[in-house]
Amino acid sequence: MSALLHIAIDAMGGDRGASISVPAAVAAAREFSDVRFTLIGRQAELQRELGGEVPANVTCLHAADVVEMTDHPRDALRRKKDSSMRRAIDLVKTKEAHACVSAGNTGALMATAHFVLKMLPGVERPAIVSLIPSRGGHTYMLDLGANASCTPEQLSQFAVMGSVLAADLQGAHDRPRVGLLNIGAEEIKGNDIVQAAHNLLAASDLNYVGFVEGDDIFSDKVDVVVTDGFTGNVALKAMEGAARLIADALREEFSRTALRKLGYLAARPALKALRTRIDPRRYNGASMVGLNGIVIKSHGGTDLYGFQRAIEVAVLEARNGVPARIAQRLGASLEV
Amino acid sequence: MSALLHIAIDAMGGDRGASISVPAAVAAAREFSDVRFTLIGRQAELQRELGGEVPANVTCLHAADVVEMTDHPRDALRRKKDSSMRRAIDLVKTKEAHACVSAGNTGALMATAHFVLKMLPGVERPAIVSLIPSRGGHTYMLDLGANASCTPEQLSQFAVMGSVLAADLQGAHDRPRVGLLNIGAEEIKGNDIVQAAHNLLAASDLNYVGFVEGDDIFSDKVDVVVTDGFTGNVALKAMEGAARLIADALREEFSRTALRKLGYLAARPALKALRTRIDPRRYNGASMVGLNGIVIKSHGGTDLYGFQRAIEVAVLEARNGVPARIAQRLGASLEV
Repeated sequence: MSALLHIAIDAMGGDRGASISVPAAVAAAREFSDVRFTLIGRQAELQRELGGEVPANVTCLHAADVVEMTDHPRDALRRKKDSSMRRAIDLVKTKEAHACVSAGNTGALMATAHFVLKMLPGVERPAIVSLIPSRGGHTYMLDLGANASCTPEQLSQFAVMGSVLAADLQGAHDRPRVGLLNIGAEEIKGNDIVQAAHNLLAASDLNYVGFVEGDDIFSDKVDVVVTDGFTGNVALKAMEGAARLIADALREEFSRTALRKLGYLAARPALKALRTRIDPRRYNGASMVGLNGIVIKSHGGTDLYGFQRAIEVAVLEARNGVPARIAQRLGASLEV
Repeated sequence: MSALLHIAIDAMGGDRGASISVPAAVAAAREFSDVRFTLIGRQAELQRELGGEVPANVTCLHAADVVEMTDHPRDALRRKKDSSMRRAIDLVKTKEAHACVSAGNTGALMATAHFVLKMLPGVERPAIVSLIPSRGGHTYMLDLGANASCTPEQLSQFAVMGSVLAADLQGAHDRPRVGLLNIGAEEIKGNDIVQAAHNLLAASDLNYVGFVEGDDIFSDKVDVVVTDGFTGNVALKAMEGAARLIADALREEFSRTALRKLGYLAARPALKALRTRIDPRRYNGASMVGLNGIVIKSHGGTDLYGFQRAIEVAVLEARNGVPARIAQRLGASLEV
């Protein structure tokens, strides 16, 4: 692997394909002049989007196939071996690239990455992890949808992976605080899996703070929130939905009368600052952790700004050698 | 049972006990002059809060014990047989009251109500259901935490109960649209339980629209969202947490500079209208459905306005004879 950091980009994924990924990669290439970027996709489309001025640290790689959002993961894996997604993951496998980024079909990306890269030793299942804005800054939450059900051991592995990300990438805490998502009703403190995971975590060398509830995700009590992919996915989408409902209601209320529209003008600086703070694009770029390689999933519907954030996550994880750090931590901490 | 509707109120429950429940009951008694209210709790405290002018349709019933927030549900059930909570439920059991309301310990309320009232025929487990604000108005979501795990049959019974509430209490639709909460990742469309529940619902005579995701709770695609109590509780708290984070950030941004404070004044009408729309107190009052009697749980930390809303839910369910309607619908629709 060359000394220069190298990021492979599936340029065809996402709702708007190369029209987003190419300018985002060019912007990232200007931001990180010491990193190489390879755009993978249909040559003609890449060239058209690149236009004349191409930064020296951006190159293109032709791939004839595209994984569609509607493709079944199994079919994408078996039949689209020359897709931009597959080629990006292959570059990580052969260690030509340090990380890859895709805004494509989540299921296909997970299945292909899992098949090609395999798991890190000590990790049974990959998990999807992302930053969530919180009072303390942000929280890493996982799994966000890779596993509809999880064993206690898998939840405990997720806790280690989340801790590595929080400690190495955010650097806020040497020993990030880990919480296990549960429900608060006294009668039934969760199910058997959550209880068993609780016991594993309490016996581990992680900084485990115990059970947390859904609203604690946004508190400054924890740096990492662990849950299964079913609960995590529903919770993530529920909070996104709630935020969108509030944003829409705010817009409606401010456009109801002429006076309120005037009020909006006076309030605009504060409202813009709020929008920036909770902008979901800022948190774009989820990691598929546990794999033997770095795979970053961008939201399919994101824009240039959002895709650039996902590329930044890839650069950050590659710089910190996240998979190696996870393997190291798992060897050390999960002798359970 | 007398012809007059009669609501029993556990006056001692919640963070602020009689100081909230008593004035809320008095306000409700003025709103519903054709409904009788019985306040249950320590006579001296009830009298002190009632003061001089007591509406004719409010009476008091002395109960020496109080279930504390820290009491274990089992202990509350076994040892506090003269608690205000237990006496309120007993009045529903003996059919002296048509419904009861409590802001007390959720686990104790559920355990006691389950033990005293028993289940409706055809329902295996009680579920906690509440209205959630949405684009279309609101959505009934259940279970919100009574059952950490559920069988497909139980989820299917929840769907029937949610449909009855949506049809009879909201009256918006004769055939409320029911969605089953699931995750969207293509690779793994949920777990076996969700798949089996999906098949049961598709074969039922409910207006089942299929799987929905976390953000669909707020859409106008569905009137009822069904899920297990673990996922439902986490999702509910996650959305509440997200809303609170946004509200706090809004307040912060508007108080950052003198100019922004001025901007706030101009924006206040719109912001107040927003606050009213998403005010969680408006949605206070969750039902414990599936029991052979109406039990409404108020949020423990609510205020007079919020507690009054919970009482209104009790009146509405009592007027509509919800338990009988559920039993009737279950006999008709769940021959699976």
